[in-house]
Amino acid sequence: MSDTETYQPPKVWTWDAENGGQFAKTNRPIAGPTHDKELPVGKHPLQLYSLATPNGVKVTVMLEELLALGKTGAEYDAWLIKIGDGDQFGSGFVEVNPNSKIPALMDHSTTPPTRIFESGAILLYLAEKHGAFLPSDPAKRPEMLSWLMWQMGSAPYLGGGFGHFYAYAPEKMEYPINRFTMEAKRQLDVLDRQLAERPFIAGDEYTIADIAIWPWYGQLVLGRLYSAAEFLDVESYKNVMAWAKKIDARPAVQRGRMVNRAFGEPELQLHERHDASDFETKTQDKIGTAAE
Amino acid sequence: MSDTETYQPPKVWTWDAENGGQFAKTNRPIAGPTHDKELPVGKHPLQLYSLATPNGVKVTVMLEELLALGKTGAEYDAWLIKIGDGDQFGSGFVEVNPNSKIPALMDHSTTPPTRIFESGAILLYLAEKHGAFLPSDPAKRPEMLSWLMWQMGSAPYLGGGFGHFYAYAPEKMEYPINRFTMEAKRQLDVLDRQLAERPFIAGDEYTIADIAIWPWYGQLVLGRLYSAAEFLDVESYKNVMAWAKKIDARPAVQRGRMVNRAFGEPELQLHERHDASDFETKTQDKIGTAAE
Repeated sequence: MSDTETYQPPKVWTWDAENGGQFAKTNRPIAGPTHDKELPVGKHPLQLYSLATPNGVKVTVMLEELLALGKTGAEYDAWLIKIGDGDQFGSGFVEVNPNSKIPALMDHSTTPPTRIFESGAILLYLAEKHGAFLPSDPAKRPEMLSWLMWQMGSAPYLGGGFGHFYAYAPEKMEYPINRFTMEAKRQLDVLDRQLAERPFIAGDEYTIADIAIWPWYGQLVLGRLYSAAEFLDVESYKNVMAWAKKIDARPAVQRGRMVNRAFGEPELQLHERHDASDFETKTQDKIGTAAE
Repeated sequence: MSDTETYQPPKVWTWDAENGGQFAKTNRPIAGPTHDKELPVGKHPLQLYSLATPNGVKVTVMLEELLALGKTGAEYDAWLIKIGDGDQFGSGFVEVNPNSKIPALMDHSTTPPTRIFESGAILLYLAEKHGAFLPSDPAKRPEMLSWLMWQMGSAPYLGGGFGHFYAYAPEKMEYPINRFTMEAKRQLDVLDRQLAERPFIAGDEYTIADIAIWPWYGQLVLGRLYSAAEFLDVESYKNVMAWAKKIDARPAVQRGRMVNRAFGEPELQLHERHDASDFETKTQDKIGTAAE
């Protein structure tokens, strides 16, 4: 890389599939399926195909919150999509999400079944369908929508920008790390100022704006993303930290974090979820581990 | 940059305000206002504070499309926010959008007035308020929402990723350019496959999904962003190109592109818009220029 200064892009970019680093198998310049594979379908109205990345956790937290409210129409089967193995490029998955990203949802309660992709769309769809986690005062809907969209447009700088260059890129590059660190800190400060004056992102109520933002920025300040807590001085965002801990304590959030988790602490890994009782064994595991 | 290979991030990141490159004045690691400045308020219900970047154009196209449908409640004053001068850090702007990004909208038809920020939220707010540019069949709303959110989550890779590193960063860096070029081309291919089977993004109808996606991906294939048409081989995305030209021909889109434009072709620059007649002089300018 000593030729960094003199690199000149070609006139027309071409794909060097051999030179893609750690993500060569999952990052491609073309869309569409790479292989035929049907998706499984379980017994519940909602079929979720996902992985417990922050975008995946948004949806499993939402579903667990809906079930905790007694919304039985939110019963779901959660199937694991191993993105490192390329499951997102299977023909069945691409039919549900042509963008080949998790999470993707099929709602079989409609005729024909309805596909929904992009975590923000899934949150809004579920909230509207079940009449929950939206502001009770319709006049506050624009504020909620603003923050929901803020999350969708901001987190790519945190995940695809900061997280990638700080934690995952094959070498440390100063300029991209500085660029995306500055933006990640600015975003944390935006949230910190917003949460200085109200208990939840969009006001007095816990809404899908919180459910969208917590898995990224909440888990970031809790030290769960990119081993970056010290680097970003997350303790200085006191209002974000207090909000993050408050939401982290919710039982539905604790369950939602476990679903489709296939990395990290073994006792948190519930690879598939098909029934509320699926958590019980894992909870015993957790207690067992804590006691060891 | 010969020390690229050996760069090691510090334990705790600190801001070097002197070393931020071209964007040192506009990129900051902290939020909030930098100076006191009230925003102007005109005569119409809607007050838009914006600039004709792709995110700004989404909203001005939407407003012009609503007015073309006869939705007089969409009458608006559009005020120019010069982001290079830091207008987005004025106290009045931060009150409308605490994230200090354009576009930001105030709706004075409600009591109290309602703020909405993030272009995707503004589009959904205006579409729902006026009952327009949403699928006429409610069963198709999830598909529209999925693509609206797809745009919000994808364009940061095109703008803040590809565009920045290909066109604006102080030097050309091979790894970030390859990373974000691959993603930009993948996104174009996602759209190309979607548009192979239907005239508009979410189906048979022109919706806010098109209005969100066109200013980025439509203008990209039309060669208007980043001087990157040849590099990305945009001609190969034939369905995106046909769709982009079809939308570009809409009179409301042509008007929307001009509003709050303060760069590029002088005859397209309508810095502020307060009345439908404001376009007439500019149209004469355009004819005059073409005749020269």
